[in-house]
Amino acid sequence: MIDINALFKLSYGLYIVSTGDKTYGNGYVANTFFQITSSPAQFATCCNKDNHSAAMIEKYGCFTVSILHENADSETIGKFGFKTGKDINKMTDSQVKYGQTGAPIITSDSVAYLECKLVNKIDVGTHYLFVGELIAAELLNDKIEPMTYATYRKVKKGLAPKNAPTYVDKAQIEAQPEKPKAKQYRCAICGYVHDEDEEHTHFDDLPDDWTCPICSATKEDFVEL
Amino acid sequence: MIDINALFKLSYGLYIVSTGDKTYGNGYVANTFFQITSSPAQFATCCNKDNHSAAMIEKYGCFTVSILHENADSETIGKFGFKTGKDINKMTDSQVKYGQTGAPIITSDSVAYLECKLVNKIDVGTHYLFVGELIAAELLNDKIEPMTYATYRKVKKGLAPKNAPTYVDKAQIEAQPEKPKAKQYRCAICGYVHDEDEEHTHFDDLPDDWTCPICSATKEDFVEL
Repeated sequence: MIDINALFKLSYGLYIVSTGDKTYGNGYVANTFFQITSSPAQFATCCNKDNHSAAMIEKYGCFTVSILHENADSETIGKFGFKTGKDINKMTDSQVKYGQTGAPIITSDSVAYLECKLVNKIDVGTHYLFVGELIAAELLNDKIEPMTYATYRKVKKGLAPKNAPTYVDKAQIEAQPEKPKAKQYRCAICGYVHDEDEEHTHFDDLPDDWTCPICSATKEDFVEL
Repeated sequence: MIDINALFKLSYGLYIVSTGDKTYGNGYVANTFFQITSSPAQFATCCNKDNHSAAMIEKYGCFTVSILHENADSETIGKFGFKTGKDINKMTDSQVKYGQTGAPIITSDSVAYLECKLVNKIDVGTHYLFVGELIAAELLNDKIEPMTYATYRKVKKGLAPKNAPTYVDKAQIEAQPEKPKAKQYRCAICGYVHDEDEEHTHFDDLPDDWTCPICSATKEDFVEL
């Protein structure tokens, strides 16, 4: 017996993992970023093989990790978490500085960042674990708490995209106990759910120019559940 | 430039990873446990090669992970985090049930547990990443929040043991800004620091039978910093 609710008790942070250079940069939202050895200080990040970022991390041989704060802008999360960088340069319109490796670092919405040189790529099935050796780390904002994945899920009501290692199919959740009762509408782009009961607002009463708080999709992109 | 304070902004949970059988079991405290793929659901735990648990996970081919709650008993953390199971059976005197693999699961102090079949062992230097495929997961207590590593450090003032991937040498911390001012005493067994300023109690005023809140060492095991 596997109760998916048990998995939601695991604690993670929320990060933007970036790579590239001043001409073109890319990044994705990750919750599974973690230290794996202390001597030397090595860190691993989990990346779906199909993500554009996977090919880019290999190409550039480095990555930076911005640790998001608890009030991080949903639009930033939407852009980095639910859109591909194949066709756009995600660094445009973002507050960015460049590390020792030349890779971009998202400084807005972040409490701190780490910069790593790629030392290993481990194949774990649908994903790679990219292992990096720490070459730089800086505190950017000590006044605000880091965003945890629990806060992202509970307060921001964000979901993991399909390519995330912690992705859970909605159908699986709904097969579990404590199924919500209210009328709900799901964003077809990012999976965000507008729950009329929790929001105290009927979906039909939302203004026509209302957009998804996670990925900025329009009302027309929502389907009733 | 590496500012260690940036590393403390990474979010982790706190877990007891166990293996063995009804005759003999062992476990260690981990903060770096995380999901790495969703299909199939695979999880990785980071374990120092010198840990007795490393050899045992290989031998038994499985492990269980108890997700500690925020009021988890410091003695439990002390026993599993700072003592070796080479000479003792850590499961004695612990509230334990046994999983499908026969491995012990710590049910006291836990909000949920996961059980995994070992599918891969990855060498990352001083540590192994043990990769397990999920075979069972159960929610044990939905009334209390999971313990985060931040709570463990801030509220419980716990430290990472030397074998942990997130171990930081005290000397490194002290070379950083915001060095504390008060008279301090460090537990030679687990590294816990009694800070007279924060505790509002002089170390000399503590009763003779006072013990380390993390590992139960006696006052004599403490050294002034």
